[in-house]
Amino acid sequence: MDTKQDSNPACPVPLSAYEQILMAHGGGGTLMHRLLEQVFYPAFGNPILDQQGDGAILAPAGGRLAFTTDSYVVHPLFFPGGDIGTLAVNGTVNDLAMCGARPLYLSAGFIIEEGLPVATLKRVAASMAQCAAAARVHIVTGDTKVVEKGKGDGLFINTSGIGIIEHELVIQPRSLRAGDVIVLSGDIGRHGLTIMAQREGLTFESAIESDCAPLVDPVLAMIKAGIDIHCLRDLTRGGLASGMVEIATTAGRQINLEERAIPVREDVRGACEIMGFDPLYIANEGCFAAFLPERDAALALEILKAHNCNEAACIGTVTAGDAGLVTMTTSIGSRRIVAMLSGEQLPRIC
Amino acid sequence: MDTKQDSNPACPVPLSAYEQILMAHGGGGTLMHRLLEQVFYPAFGNPILDQQGDGAILAPAGGRLAFTTDSYVVHPLFFPGGDIGTLAVNGTVNDLAMCGARPLYLSAGFIIEEGLPVATLKRVAASMAQCAAAARVHIVTGDTKVVEKGKGDGLFINTSGIGIIEHELVIQPRSLRAGDVIVLSGDIGRHGLTIMAQREGLTFESAIESDCAPLVDPVLAMIKAGIDIHCLRDLTRGGLASGMVEIATTAGRQINLEERAIPVREDVRGACEIMGFDPLYIANEGCFAAFLPERDAALALEILKAHNCNEAACIGTVTAGDAGLVTMTTSIGSRRIVAMLSGEQLPRIC
Repeated sequence: MDTKQDSNPACPVPLSAYEQILMAHGGGGTLMHRLLEQVFYPAFGNPILDQQGDGAILAPAGGRLAFTTDSYVVHPLFFPGGDIGTLAVNGTVNDLAMCGARPLYLSAGFIIEEGLPVATLKRVAASMAQCAAAARVHIVTGDTKVVEKGKGDGLFINTSGIGIIEHELVIQPRSLRAGDVIVLSGDIGRHGLTIMAQREGLTFESAIESDCAPLVDPVLAMIKAGIDIHCLRDLTRGGLASGMVEIATTAGRQINLEERAIPVREDVRGACEIMGFDPLYIANEGCFAAFLPERDAALALEILKAHNCNEAACIGTVTAGDAGLVTMTTSIGSRRIVAMLSGEQLPRIC
Repeated sequence: MDTKQDSNPACPVPLSAYEQILMAHGGGGTLMHRLLEQVFYPAFGNPILDQQGDGAILAPAGGRLAFTTDSYVVHPLFFPGGDIGTLAVNGTVNDLAMCGARPLYLSAGFIIEEGLPVATLKRVAASMAQCAAAARVHIVTGDTKVVEKGKGDGLFINTSGIGIIEHELVIQPRSLRAGDVIVLSGDIGRHGLTIMAQREGLTFESAIESDCAPLVDPVLAMIKAGIDIHCLRDLTRGGLASGMVEIATTAGRQINLEERAIPVREDVRGACEIMGFDPLYIANEGCFAAFLPERDAALALEILKAHNCNEAACIGTVTAGDAGLVTMTTSIGSRRIVAMLSGEQLPRIC
């Protein structure tokens, strides 16, 4: 495998017009980046979209706003630790938090397959309402479409969100500095593994549940404490590995990770070994990485732990090194290159 | 049929938890209103959502913003006069225009069925880019999901939009006054009829194309000219009839329409007669109704005609009368009650 090519989504293999969409085009890895680089960015290109953040930063009048969108197609609709409704609210709220914004308003667009029980829709709406209340956002506008049986899959939800930016930080990959440390908010791998197990009918000895949770409070607390956050990224599709490669590439910096420092629960590690997954590539829904100066690391960890992020840890550093390169010092002391997810590991996990 | 019940979505038949979603739950008529009233509004209720406009009016900091969302599931993806991409941009831009807002930013969320040709996606993205440029909006954030073959239908698109409100008008159904006139911007029925003909492989003697178009410029020109607009509504799902019933109900006013004044092209009228459709219920994608004081009607018509709305006409009036009642004086001089669309006439027209 040509890791150089995989680790640099800015130089993708040309997409032929005769190609068809594969599941992997939605996986958060190299193929999805090819699609963005070759179809959407050229068509829609503008300075705001080119920020390539989890959301767009707008300044329509006076203060800065963050604006983001995500569609949710998770299968199955319900899983241990959450459902499509909790994902649809927390996922979009978290994208706003990753812009350093206080989430204020959400839209909700439902694409329902004919025949879905109304009871299912009510249960999902109740989850969404509960998560919105917990994150202190209001669902202010919406839309409902129905497609014929066999033309959808139960329920797809799109949420878009608006948040307000109440500080002067410029939180984006390009703000990374050599010497920054990478603070991870919690253990990785639980969400994707939960979905996969649920889908395959597997059970674990211990209960593994999705980590789906809102990340607003710990982020806003770090900002309020004056921590000079340079970049934030929630580690959803493509997992920790793909998030790090994306940021290293956009920032033009090198990232070095310490495998030993990355928290993975023993039961998650065991299940991954049995199923042949690498936790670095598994999607999370309640876990983020913060890039900040080393002097702020201890305070950041203290704040995260005060917000129930008990496994928070410093997992690596940023260097000038090679732009776009992500390396990892493994537990046995060797060093390996971390590539972006190639192909599709776990389809439809969010 | 109990028209009283149909014409008052605020008193719907209870939705049983054992019910399943029908195509008509997405049709813009009484069943969709039951779903909103019984599932979504109770779950998400807040003062902004309760405005029940085409979009939400927000005031996060200083100026007022409009925020709206729509998912597009039109079938087929391409049709005379447009495609899913032109709908996805113009539809959301028009919802912002109906709030009296100047559209600024759009998000774009794609749910792609595995196997879709990349060439199709490129063609749709090019349409979106062209419409965005024409409406002077930027697509600033997006998302791509892929679902397995047979779990979608080619392509679904969600767009959400943010616009800025640069005037002091309060444009909403509750601003209706007895004595207001209703100005319609153009002839009705073309979009829905085009989609239906395309789907059924029908051809007309004359070319009937979708009326899909951005409505921003005529609306902003009317506002700039000082016209005291009370309410605006684009006449999409459910057509002119459902839009009027919705507004009469929310406003607590009566609306009287003049059938003779409602512009319907001869070829559209003929095709409707053959196919058994009532143009009043057919969706439009480039046509809106404005409610305004009679003194402003002549100026409104002049401005609309200067913006290529050549068929613009005064089609009715608002009276104190019966709250929620919509009547129509027919071409032969009799008077009939206009009910909201009941059931589903043309599924997946947007």
